[in-house]
Amino acid sequence: MDFSISTELQSTLETVRAFVQDELVPLEHEFLHRPFVQLLPALHKKRKHVRELGLFAPHIERSHGGAGFNLLEFALISEQLGQSPLGHFVFNCQAPDAGNMELLLAHASEAQKAEFLAPLLAGELRSCFSMTEPDYPGSNPVWMGTTATRDGDDYVINGRKWFTSSAEGASFAIVMATTNPEAASSHARASMFLVPTDTPGFRIVRNIAVMGEAGSDYASHAEISYEDCRIPAENRIGAEGAGFFLAQERLGPGRIHHCMRWLGICRRAFDLMCQRAATRQITPETTLGDQQIVQSWIAESHAEILAARLMVLHTAWIIETQGTNGARTEISAIKFHVADVLQRVLDRAIQVHGALGITDDTPLAYWYRHERAARIYDGPDEVHKGVVSRRLLKSLQTQGERP
Amino acid sequence: MDFSISTELQSTLETVRAFVQDELVPLEHEFLHRPFVQLLPALHKKRKHVRELGLFAPHIERSHGGAGFNLLEFALISEQLGQSPLGHFVFNCQAPDAGNMELLLAHASEAQKAEFLAPLLAGELRSCFSMTEPDYPGSNPVWMGTTATRDGDDYVINGRKWFTSSAEGASFAIVMATTNPEAASSHARASMFLVPTDTPGFRIVRNIAVMGEAGSDYASHAEISYEDCRIPAENRIGAEGAGFFLAQERLGPGRIHHCMRWLGICRRAFDLMCQRAATRQITPETTLGDQQIVQSWIAESHAEILAARLMVLHTAWIIETQGTNGARTEISAIKFHVADVLQRVLDRAIQVHGALGITDDTPLAYWYRHERAARIYDGPDEVHKGVVSRRLLKSLQTQGERP
Amino acid sequence: MDFSISTELQSTLETVRAFVQDELVPLEHEFLHRPFVQLLPALHKKRKHVRELGLFAPHIERSHGGAGFNLLEFALISEQLGQSPLGHFVFNCQAPDAGNMELLLAHASEAQKAEFLAPLLAGELRSCFSMTEPDYPGSNPVWMGTTATRDGDDYVINGRKWFTSSAEGASFAIVMATTNPEAASSHARASMFLVPTDTPGFRIVRNIAVMGEAGSDYASHAEISYEDCRIPAENRIGAEGAGFFLAQERLGPGRIHHCMRWLGICRRAFDLMCQRAATRQITPETTLGDQQIVQSWIAESHAEILAARLMVLHTAWIIETQGTNGARTEISAIKFHVADVLQRVLDRAIQVHGALGITDDTPLAYWYRHERAARIYDGPDEVHKGVVSRRLLKSLQTQGERP
Amino acid sequence: MDFSISTELQSTLETVRAFVQDELVPLEHEFLHRPFVQLLPALHKKRKHVRELGLFAPHIERSHGGAGFNLLEFALISEQLGQSPLGHFVFNCQAPDAGNMELLLAHASEAQKAEFLAPLLAGELRSCFSMTEPDYPGSNPVWMGTTATRDGDDYVINGRKWFTSSAEGASFAIVMATTNPEAASSHARASMFLVPTDTPGFRIVRNIAVMGEAGSDYASHAEISYEDCRIPAENRIGAEGAGFFLAQERLGPGRIHHCMRWLGICRRAFDLMCQRAATRQITPETTLGDQQIVQSWIAESHAEILAARLMVLHTAWIIETQGTNGARTEISAIKFHVADVLQRVLDRAIQVHGALGITDDTPLAYWYRHERAARIYDGPDEVHKGVVSRRLLKSLQTQGERP
Repeated sequence: MDFSISTELQSTLETVRAFVQDELVPLEHEFLHRPFVQLLPALHKKRKHVRELGLFAPHIERSHGGAGFNLLEFALISEQLGQSPLGHFVFNCQAPDAGNMELLLAHASEAQKAEFLAPLLAGELRSCFSMTEPDYPGSNPVWMGTTATRDGDDYVINGRKWFTSSAEGASFAIVMATTNPEAASSHARASMFLVPTDTPGFRIVRNIAVMGEAGSDYASHAEISYEDCRIPAENRIGAEGAGFFLAQERLGPGRIHHCMRWLGICRRAFDLMCQRAATRQITPETTLGDQQIVQSWIAESHAEILAARLMVLHTAWIIETQGTNGARTEISAIKFHVADVLQRVLDRAIQVHGALGITDDTPLAYWYRHERAARIYDGPDEVHKGVVSRRLLKSLQTQGERP
Repeated sequence: MDFSISTELQSTLETVRAFVQDELVPLEHEFLHRPFVQLLPALHKKRKHVRELGLFAPHIERSHGGAGFNLLEFALISEQLGQSPLGHFVFNCQAPDAGNMELLLAHASEAQKAEFLAPLLAGELRSCFSMTEPDYPGSNPVWMGTTATRDGDDYVINGRKWFTSSAEGASFAIVMATTNPEAASSHARASMFLVPTDTPGFRIVRNIAVMGEAGSDYASHAEISYEDCRIPAENRIGAEGAGFFLAQERLGPGRIHHCMRWLGICRRAFDLMCQRAATRQITPETTLGDQQIVQSWIAESHAEILAARLMVLHTAWIIETQGTNGARTEISAIKFHVADVLQRVLDRAIQVHGALGITDDTPLAYWYRHERAARIYDGPDEVHKGVVSRRLLKSLQTQGERP
Repeated sequence: MDFSISTELQSTLETVRAFVQDELVPLEHEFLHRPFVQLLPALHKKRKHVRELGLFAPHIERSHGGAGFNLLEFALISEQLGQSPLGHFVFNCQAPDAGNMELLLAHASEAQKAEFLAPLLAGELRSCFSMTEPDYPGSNPVWMGTTATRDGDDYVINGRKWFTSSAEGASFAIVMATTNPEAASSHARASMFLVPTDTPGFRIVRNIAVMGEAGSDYASHAEISYEDCRIPAENRIGAEGAGFFLAQERLGPGRIHHCMRWLGICRRAFDLMCQRAATRQITPETTLGDQQIVQSWIAESHAEILAARLMVLHTAWIIETQGTNGARTEISAIKFHVADVLQRVLDRAIQVHGALGITDDTPLAYWYRHERAARIYDGPDEVHKGVVSRRLLKSLQTQGERP
Repeated sequence: MDFSISTELQSTLETVRAFVQDELVPLEHEFLHRPFVQLLPALHKKRKHVRELGLFAPHIERSHGGAGFNLLEFALISEQLGQSPLGHFVFNCQAPDAGNMELLLAHASEAQKAEFLAPLLAGELRSCFSMTEPDYPGSNPVWMGTTATRDGDDYVINGRKWFTSSAEGASFAIVMATTNPEAASSHARASMFLVPTDTPGFRIVRNIAVMGEAGSDYASHAEISYEDCRIPAENRIGAEGAGFFLAQERLGPGRIHHCMRWLGICRRAFDLMCQRAATRQITPETTLGDQQIVQSWIAESHAEILAARLMVLHTAWIIETQGTNGARTEISAIKFHVADVLQRVLDRAIQVHGALGITDDTPLAYWYRHERAARIYDGPDEVHKGVVSRRLLKSLQTQGERP
């Protein structure tokens, strides 16, 4: 076992850290007080800077125009980026685009790649992922209402989706829809489609007000109506009926991305908490950091973050060395475990800040309200706990052997 | 011991419950999606209705124009009102006005009562309470930077306050300021003043963005600059140096108000959670309520709410029978205990709602983000726990006697 | 609502409190370091004293030789008794005898009462309750392996039970056994029997080592083998097939008894914690009670105990005024809620005592290890949470009406 | 970063695992139901077996007769050994001897090594460590009552210690005593001494009853009186006044040992929990493992154990690569973090076992009651949290640099 990282990677991480600190943190006040669209010009300028540093799309192989880091390396970069709500966007590895990129790289046809993937990797356009439905439970991914009916050379999509994040301003959506309702296996009923957002019948009903904010552009979550939305059959990704399989594949490594981003949030929240504790006077002679309860929050947060971080890096290492399949239990485990740590650390950091903690003068309140969703999106805690447990109980017979 | 309530009160509670359900809940969508000011006309209409029911200002004696309920009765009414974010406002018993009313009733001069209290009780104007400062810790109430300097027949106030809730649109502020910096006791240095908001030098610097919302009018939290703000000495409430004592008196019963309002929120959140569990299908044959974890959240919430509720009512009963002084330990205990129950119940209710829970299609997300402050305002948990513990340890010697 | 208690009851409680303090606490060291049997002579002397005070069997009506307190009154007495591990035994209201008394009072024949109940009420003998089986889940009370087969005028019992508490030294057991395995309803298959412990075929296999202690006499938990154990049919309690119903009835109020006893433990643990905090010096100038974390434990424990206590008293009041049936949800709710508070308070009290806390120099370690079972016996937490939730969800339709 | 371990180590771990499973687990029933002394012959036989495997004293360099594993390797071995309460003892790396060995290796004179260390390493005798005192707080290690007064060529020790674990049957104690009460620094007042247990004046007052068990021999915790206990000055370890420094050094790596042992306990408890969940039927058709709450306990335990385990291994790696000093924050962090995970995992495992969980038919109840001390010994949680926090806040200024 060797927990060291190479000097080269060390230096990259320092570059990223400094960039986030010097270039992105100063934009946060604007981000927290103005509509996202107003920030776009500034963000595009920063993206240019990132391209010059050779760090754009860090999770994508160099042959496809990315910076070419492996998963473990990207995890560490992602932790740095997560320290600002703007980090991943500026490096073009933000959800949902990052997951869409990986999906298309693995499963898109050459024509699809040329039309949709290339400009996405280049940061020339944005995309969205349209799976969750208001009337069907996200926890049961094989039960959905949206249909794609074959009609000659086309598919015609009908249905309603919501929490299609970043749909406003996106050029295309990847849409899950039932194509084979009669398939024997419930896992073989859906397919995935590339749907340009200017397709007639694609309609954003609303940007859902989430935690008080309807948001705009990238920073929004749309409810979308698909009404006789007609697309050519070439826009199907992979085989008919492969939708569920593709979705699973897309979400697996995506959970690593989220977890490392959350750990970046944890670290920033932790630093803010320490900073506050060290400097906020509660009497002329003492600071918050002299209080035993504040001390215990700092210590507990430190331990929880450290342990969770190693767990995520370990999972990334398993994926790198044994493939996603060998890491399925661990991927589910980090999903609920890190989300839990995140919520506790944010809660403590806010409490240490007192009234300041609930204002938008720091990013804590933003994360507190918007990352409540971390325990819900990409599978609620309860679903992942069930997955982990059932896999472990199933493997009981072979357990004796592991040292 | 007798836990029953009179048929008369029972019937009043039913009236209030029905009013909240039928008249206020339908306004919530508007409240959650539009600036508060736009809702004012509708709310004033509802206030008229409440006056006709004879329930306006329910916590105020009839001789002063209120509905005349005692604290225990009002606690139960407040629980009903708390089920909607609009309840207390429409019944004219909302913070910070309710506390200001009680303070002025007890300590204002006749002239002050005529000028400030009477229209406040009548619901003709609103007020605010200006104590917390950005640069001094709220947890140390005897340490503040704002000063009121005597100058002939006037006081001249200078300083900066924040979290002066509902200052926008208020007609006057009650302001804490240091008048006697050299007083031997740190508890005798501050005084309280009535400051009309149109006094020159009173300036709202901003409505602080709190959890993403700067808000407006009643639904806002101002940062206020007092710059050579001159008021006549007659506007001082009570004696010079009595500010800290008055603030303590004002906050004591106010904590009962908050706690019963929180229990109203708990009940609403609980009802929404049960409703969702009973109706949300996760497969064609089963609902969320069939899941053991959802069941355990419902059961735990039920128990926690019930226990906390009895504790608050018990505290109200002590105040009624033995006065606020005899209930000081319990008032601090309910403050942190109920705030904790509130946060847990809201968290569970949101998780049961899944993605819907973080939207503004229910009031859950509103309470989740804005009542995070419940563990901070009116004294953070840590301060109240210290108060309770020190009082209990001090009384150790006499403890043997209690049966 | 009125939380006061009569001066008369007040005075009784003070008598009980003083008795526990002066007569029983001094016996605890012996109890914690010697086999229970060695303590019996001293305890019987104390029982005599209690009889003279007119407080023997406080939960039993005077007409049957008890002290005649109603459930709410007994709850408060039980809280006092619970402060020592010896309290209930000395007052002859200890589990499992107390529950057996109530069962026999309500359902035994006159002959059964004369033979079994009378000497039990008089404290002349002890009994046990034999329901739980090692090979069948306690959480599923309608599934058991022990059978009672009719044979002429007798029943012949075969099977294995465990956690038949206090079997050693008991004169008779009340035994649950399947008599009607083919009954349509699984709730109508078992019956209850009075089995003298000297019946051939009744064999104590072992006193189970529980948390390191096999114990003896009253303080033991037996595994029992019933091998062709023949008893006259007159020893059946109630109708054939009524066993499950009788068990439910027996356990309902029994849970109130347990909860109030646990609250007595909480109070004693709390007092020990405060005493320790106030007196244990950690530097020459400061005590443990000066530490903020210890303060927060004291405050949290105070609040949790107070809230839980009111909840149990409220449940007792519902049972008194509306019968056990009207309190079924609340009885399940207090069972898991108070057990949880108990465990947390004990844990904190031990931590405040440091190394002393895990020794048997205080009763804390005894309760810590033996009341871990509180979350298991009489239905594990998970079962009661399921009960509460299902009852609440079922009553959803009528909920709108409650104010 | 590389989380793999060498095939060689892998094979050693498998050997240890199999040994624990096949040789030690079968002895546990005896261990849990009989006095420790009765088990000694069997254990000494097993020790012989371990010597033949070349694994005796695995944490000690080969040049001193140990098996020569480094800290990271030993951590993994220790995790295997911890799965049985007998593991460490049989491999001669049990507390307190293991820590005493390390201390003597680093700081004993050659004469002391020959007399005390050599037979200890060979497993020919046992030792104990006598620091904690009943009348002084363990959390304040520089405040103690025991003194060692120089008298010619001797020291004369007077005082009272308790929780001198394993004193019964030990050949010598290492004793902390104040030698320089007037030293300017409170950290320079104590010294450490080797005291043969047959020295006149060394008296075991009692084996303290801990969680119901006074225990015997190795499995005991003594209260010891030192009355004019005279030892030659050559028996002082290191310099006069160096006691505190030596104690710190001794405890540092000892905490790693404890943590890995606890993780071994966690793993065994986890395996027992899974085994029970998979096999215990709650209806004829379903097992405990089908219950969602049991599933969530399994999943949470899996995640917590995995994260904590990586954290401990990471700490061992820091110590190996940067020395104990560079790992001080992490050593304190794992101490309280792993103890917390341990307690939660044990609690869940017991709950899943129901009544069986509190019996001594599994080792769970043993660990539940005796490892409650894990949050107290070697520094209570609160002390370690304070250490971590103060170190982190002190290093704030240099934090910006870490990537």
